[in-house]
Parts: sequence; C-alpha cells; structure tokens
Amino acid sequence: MDARRFEELDPPARLLLGSGPSNAEPRVLRAMASPLIGQFDPAFTRIMDEVSALSRLVLRTDNLASFPVSGSSRAGLEAAVASLVQPGDRVVVGNYGRFGDLFCEIAGRYGAEVESIDAEWGRIVEPEQVVASLRRRAAKVVAIVHADTSTGVLQPLAEIGRACREHDALLVVDAVLSLGGVEVSTDEWQLDVCVAGLQKCLGGPSGMAPLTYNQRASAAMRARAAPPRTNYLDLLQLEQYWGPDRLNHHTAPTSMVYALREALRIVCEEGLERRWERHRRASDALRAGLAALGLQLFGDPRHRVPMITLVNVPWGVDEAAVRAKLLDDFGIEIMAAFGPLNGRVWRIGLMGYNARVDNVLAVLSGLGQVLRAQGVQVPTEAAAPAALESYRGAGDRMPEPGIEARTA
Amino acid sequence: MDARRFEELDPPARLLLGSGPSNAEPRVLRAMASPLIGQFDPAFTRIMDEVSALSRLVLRTDNLASFPVSGSSRAGLEAAVASLVQPGDRVVVGNYGRFGDLFCEIAGRYGAEVESIDAEWGRIVEPEQVVASLRRRAAKVVAIVHADTSTGVLQPLAEIGRACREHDALLVVDAVLSLGGVEVSTDEWQLDVCVAGLQKCLGGPSGMAPLTYNQRASAAMRARAAPPRTNYLDLLQLEQYWGPDRLNHHTAPTSMVYALREALRIVCEEGLERRWERHRRASDALRAGLAALGLQLFGDPRHRVPMITLVNVPWGVDEAAVRAKLLDDFGIEIMAAFGPLNGRVWRIGLMGYNARVDNVLAVLSGLGQVLRAQGVQVPTEAAAPAALESYRGAGDRMPEPGIEARTA
Repeated sequence: MDARRFEELDPPARLLLGSGPSNAEPRVLRAMASPLIGQFDPAFTRIMDEVSALSRLVLRTDNLASFPVSGSSRAGLEAAVASLVQPGDRVVVGNYGRFGDLFCEIAGRYGAEVESIDAEWGRIVEPEQVVASLRRRAAKVVAIVHADTSTGVLQPLAEIGRACREHDALLVVDAVLSLGGVEVSTDEWQLDVCVAGLQKCLGGPSGMAPLTYNQRASAAMRARAAPPRTNYLDLLQLEQYWGPDRLNHHTAPTSMVYALREALRIVCEEGLERRWERHRRASDALRAGLAALGLQLFGDPRHRVPMITLVNVPWGVDEAAVRAKLLDDFGIEIMAAFGPLNGRVWRIGLMGYNARVDNVLAVLSGLGQVLRAQGVQVPTEAAAPAALESYRGAGDRMPEPGIEARTA
Repeated sequence: MDARRFEELDPPARLLLGSGPSNAEPRVLRAMASPLIGQFDPAFTRIMDEVSALSRLVLRTDNLASFPVSGSSRAGLEAAVASLVQPGDRVVVGNYGRFGDLFCEIAGRYGAEVESIDAEWGRIVEPEQVVASLRRRAAKVVAIVHADTSTGVLQPLAEIGRACREHDALLVVDAVLSLGGVEVSTDEWQLDVCVAGLQKCLGGPSGMAPLTYNQRASAAMRARAAPPRTNYLDLLQLEQYWGPDRLNHHTAPTSMVYALREALRIVCEEGLERRWERHRRASDALRAGLAALGLQLFGDPRHRVPMITLVNVPWGVDEAAVRAKLLDDFGIEIMAAFGPLNGRVWRIGLMGYNARVDNVLAVLSGLGQVLRAQGVQVPTEAAAPAALESYRGAGDRMPEPGIEARTA
C-alpha cells in the first residue's frame, strides 16, 4: 500500500444544524488534545470524581451513581435497560418516535415482554395512557424519551414519574436530546434512571453517555438473579469502577473523559436556566424567520422542543436536493427525517454551542436562497429581520450566568 | 454550586510505561481537536472507508468486515463473543492470564458452555491442549489472547488456527496488546475474528476497538436463530453501518474516529516490520539495563512479548512504594500486577509512541534511584551503558519505513 493515499486529516468546515453531532465547543475540542494520564493515576481518578460531581449538577440530582458510560448515547440507553431488565420482565415504552422504537428493540433483545404505547409522530404520549397501562398490569420498567429528535416533541414527565412511584415501576428516561437544552430535573420529576449524550446540547463529540440512577434502580439491579448478559454495559460494575472502590473494568477513554468534563464545566459556568433560555431564544428566532419565509412547522405546537425544528417541505420541492445544495454551497448541514416523515420534513437543530442567532441567520439565508433556486418564490428578504426582531425582543428575559444563581 | 471549583483541565506530565494507556502520538491528539462533521456527510463516510482500509493493512487481512467498535478494547471483545455465541454453544478459552479470564466471563454471560484450558501465569497455552480439546468434543468458538498484559507472554497462534479450521471452530483472538507491536497476521494465521485496541501499541487514547472478521465468522453470525442481546455491540448491525449500506446505528464518535485514522496512518507510514523491530529493540535495551541493575525478569524467556516487561520485585522491597515514588518524583508510571503476581512483579510497558530508547533510559534511571533510596544496593551507573549498547548494536537490523516495502 502507498501510505500517501491517506492524506492529512482535514475535515471540511461545516455548520452542523442537524440532529447531532452538533459543532463542539472549541474548548471541548482543545481539552481532548491534552496529554493522557494513567487510568488509576490519582490525578485521573480526581478528574473522574469531578465528572461525577458535574454530572449531578447538570442532571439536577443527588444520586451518588452519576457517571458516564464509555460509548455513544445508545450505549448509555442499553446499559440502563440491560442492567434492569431480566427475561420476562414487563417493560412499558411510551413511544412517539424513532427512539421509542429503539427502547422497544433493546428491551426486546434483553428478553422483556414489551408493551409499546404508541402516539402518532408529532404528538406526545398522553401520561394517562401510561398510568392506565400500569393500573391494568404491573410493569418493572417504564421507558420513555424526553425529547425525540425524530419528531421534535417534548414529552411531559412529572405525571409519569408520580405514577411509576405509585405503581412501583422504574422510570427510565432518554434525555439525550434534552439535557443542556431544556429543563431535565431528575430528582424533582422522580426519574429513576436518566441517560444523556455528549453530542447534542452538551456541546461535545459523540462517545460518552452521562447518566444517573437512584437507589430504587440500584436496588433492582442488585436484586437480579443473574448479572446482565453484557459486561461492558453492566452498570453495577461501572459504578464500582467510577465509585470509591475503583474496581478495574474497561480502560476509560481518557480523551473523551476530558471532553465530557470540559463540556459539563461550560454548562455550569453558563448556568442551566440561562442555557435553556438561550436555546429557546435561538429557536424562537429561527421559527419567526421560517414563518416569514412562508414555511410551516411540523408537530403539535404545544409540545415542541426548542433544540430541533421540523419544517414541512413545500409541495413539489426535492427535499434531498435542497439539503445537498445547502451542504455543498453553504457548508450547512440540516437533516432529513425518519420513517413516516421521510421526504416530508426537514429537521433543523440548534443545539449547545450552535444555539446562536448568527447560525439562525446563516441557515435562513441559505435555505431561502436554495428554495429560490429550486423555483419556490419565498420572500428571502423577510427572514432575517423577523428572526432578529424575535431575538432582540427576548433579550431581557435572559437569566444571570452561573448555575448557583438559580438552582440548588 | 461554584463553577470555579472545577479548574481548567491541566493533567500532569506523565511518562506512561504501564500496561496502557500509553502516551499517545502528538499527531493523534491533534487530530482529535479537528472540527466535527456530520456522521452521514460524504466527507465523513470517506473517512470511515479510509479507517476500514487502514485497518485491513495493519491487521494484515483482506476481510471486508474491518472496522472499529465504538468503545474500549473490552467492547470489541464483547462484540465478537456476543455476536457469535448463542446460549449453550461450547466455547474453549485458552487461558494464561487475566484477559483469558475476561473471555471466560463474557462468554459465560452470553450463555456459553465454557471450557477454560488454563496455563500457569508466565507460560503459554500449549497448542496441543487446544487441539486435544477440539478432538474430544466440537466447539463453536476458540477464544485466546495473543499477548496478555498480565503476564507479558506471547501466545503462538498459527497451529491453533489450523486446528480450528480442521475441527470447524471459529478462532477469536484478542490482539489488544499485540497489534502494532509484534506481528499479527490475521489471514495467514487463519484468525476468524481479531480484535485490537487503540491505547497500547497503536499510539492513541482508549475508546476505539478496531477489529476484523472473515466470511466464516460472518456466516456464523448470520446463521443465528436470534440476534444477540446487545444492540450496541451487534457486529452485523455495525457492519451495515460501516459498510456501503450505511444503515443508521449509533452516532460514531467523530473525534475518536479521527484519532484512530491518524494512529493507523502513522503505523502505515512507519511500516509494520520496522515498527515491530523498534519495539523489540527498545525492550531488548530495557532488559539489558534491568539485568545490569541485577533485576530478574518474570516468565518463560521463550515466549516473552517485547511490549511489556515483567520484573520480579527484589526481596524486601515495598513494590507499591516504589511505584508511587517513581510517579511522584520522576513522573513515570509503571504498573503493579494482577492476581497471583500482585506484589511480586512490576510491569513496564514500551508501547507504540513510547517504544524509544530515551524512555528506556528514563525508567532505568528512575527505578535505580528509587531502589537505592529504598536501601537496595543496585549498580545504578551500569544500567544506561548496558541499555545503550544493546540499542546501538541492534540499529542495523531496522527495516525500511513504509508498509509497502515488506508486506503485500
């Protein structure tokens, strides 16, 4: 082989406004270039402890078991399901999008008897349906996505949390999209397990899945007749590695631990409420601009999540050609949709580092130009003023920076 | 919380001469700081294809299925076992150290009937023992570690490879320590699955597990009655994500993919045979220096692997105190041993970027000083000349750089 075939790594400049990965915080990228240290070096175990402490702050929990799984967010979700579910256990999945399907698939693989409570894409799962299912028959686990990137819907959780306590079920929540972008109050909402990811609103690359679980979940894991099939994703083993016992397990991905620490540190410096408001403000500006272009949003307006905006593709437009043109000419990535929405909507993400008005203006400008080139008569000149007006009007609701100001 | 409690990340300078992670190549660290791009961006799928092509070269295989698992090397090993083993399958493990135990544990969790062929720590598993087991009773899988960091032993594989073909068993090999440091000839030795890791002789951080498998292994995965429990580590799904189908699975850890690509590119630039010789030369120099200090090596001298050297702790010496002093005063990490060797040996790794004579001289100097401070009368002045003499004498065996020169 000729090694010269493989050139110096030089990824093109992209504005990542899809469903994640989003552009990472420059500080996070820089942290990953730090020199490695040993996995049981006291300097590294201190960093691990700091990652746990920062995770608790960002997940709004006092759970001791707060640490990352060394894999993508999917690895975190599987760790939660695998560590709780034994073959034959009943698992109720609140399913309103692609990541509800993923919960069903993983639980099914681990031998669960799965009941999927399906909502039409674009709507929430009505909490009463989950409550009714638990009343009909006990379940060990209720699994639900907090905000599904496939539909842009934000699922209310507090009522489901209460019902799970009442019916002695464990509530497992996928907060991969939501953490860092909207409120995720693990303890207040009585989430027993809450799993996130680094590559969306936390502003890092994919590859670490911070999660937390409480004593109820931990007790259920300890009460198993046999350990889960998986060793790599066995939460009780990972807890003993991340906790004071420091039992040897896998070799932690040093650079990704650095990345996660820096990302969480940035969230805490900004402050959770200020960060949520920044996401809301950026998406309001985007939606004002899209409306000015004459485009329609998809989904139930009462339950839209700010971090991803689903836009109906105008009639007669080649949706894939628009995305390709946006990428090739403007360097902007937006996303196609899955399943029933494929070909019908675009998904535009404003997550973490990218939830900024300059990015809103860039995508509105690019999308307007590309639609015009496709022959759609959109009023391109109207988008930026509408977005800026929305953005400026919201400026006075911004909370102070720092996590201390607003949360316990 | 007060975000100021969490200072700027600033890991201490360490020379990592333990069992991995080793210090990463500076070029690999820098690659990780590159901007992110989307997971289905044509620029990124091209990078994925390059990673596969580079993996084939380094693993010396033509297998199409050559890609990394997004996790530590343990994740790669579990992916191999989980994807092949169905409950009740017979798995024979050649077990001569801690990572043989890990194979037994993982296979057991996935429901295998495990036969562990145990060798004393410090010795190889005699290939005839594996052959005899296959003759007694068919097995679906034979799993064995190529070089176990816990014992520093290099296990011969070609004879076991032939026996597995003859008896229709699949040979799964853990090449986590060996790949990049000694010959690993997947196709020539008839390894059906070969799994590596990034954090040892490939010169990167932990977090990616490059692996390869052939048509025999792939056919066995496809012939399963049901998919494996694990979704995250299901190799057939990962193959469809890394292959031309590009079926959506987890979000690839972009920065770690960059790191793996750069690490493999460096290996190919150096050339495999030159790299193996560099590892041999560095470890010969270390061993000459240790002998000059009057220290004894552990294990069967016929089967020592170059990349990690096990040294007997001199009588009366506090082994943990020596390591702590080396770390605190000299910034050098060496490793304690596991299981039966704990407290009796140190493990000194010279892996990937670290397999250099300057590091040999640094650890010999540090170890000599610390032992003297502990009251052991070692001839500290003798170590460096002995190491340098060995090192210089070996200089004329170095092959030319570049992978093309020596291998197909």
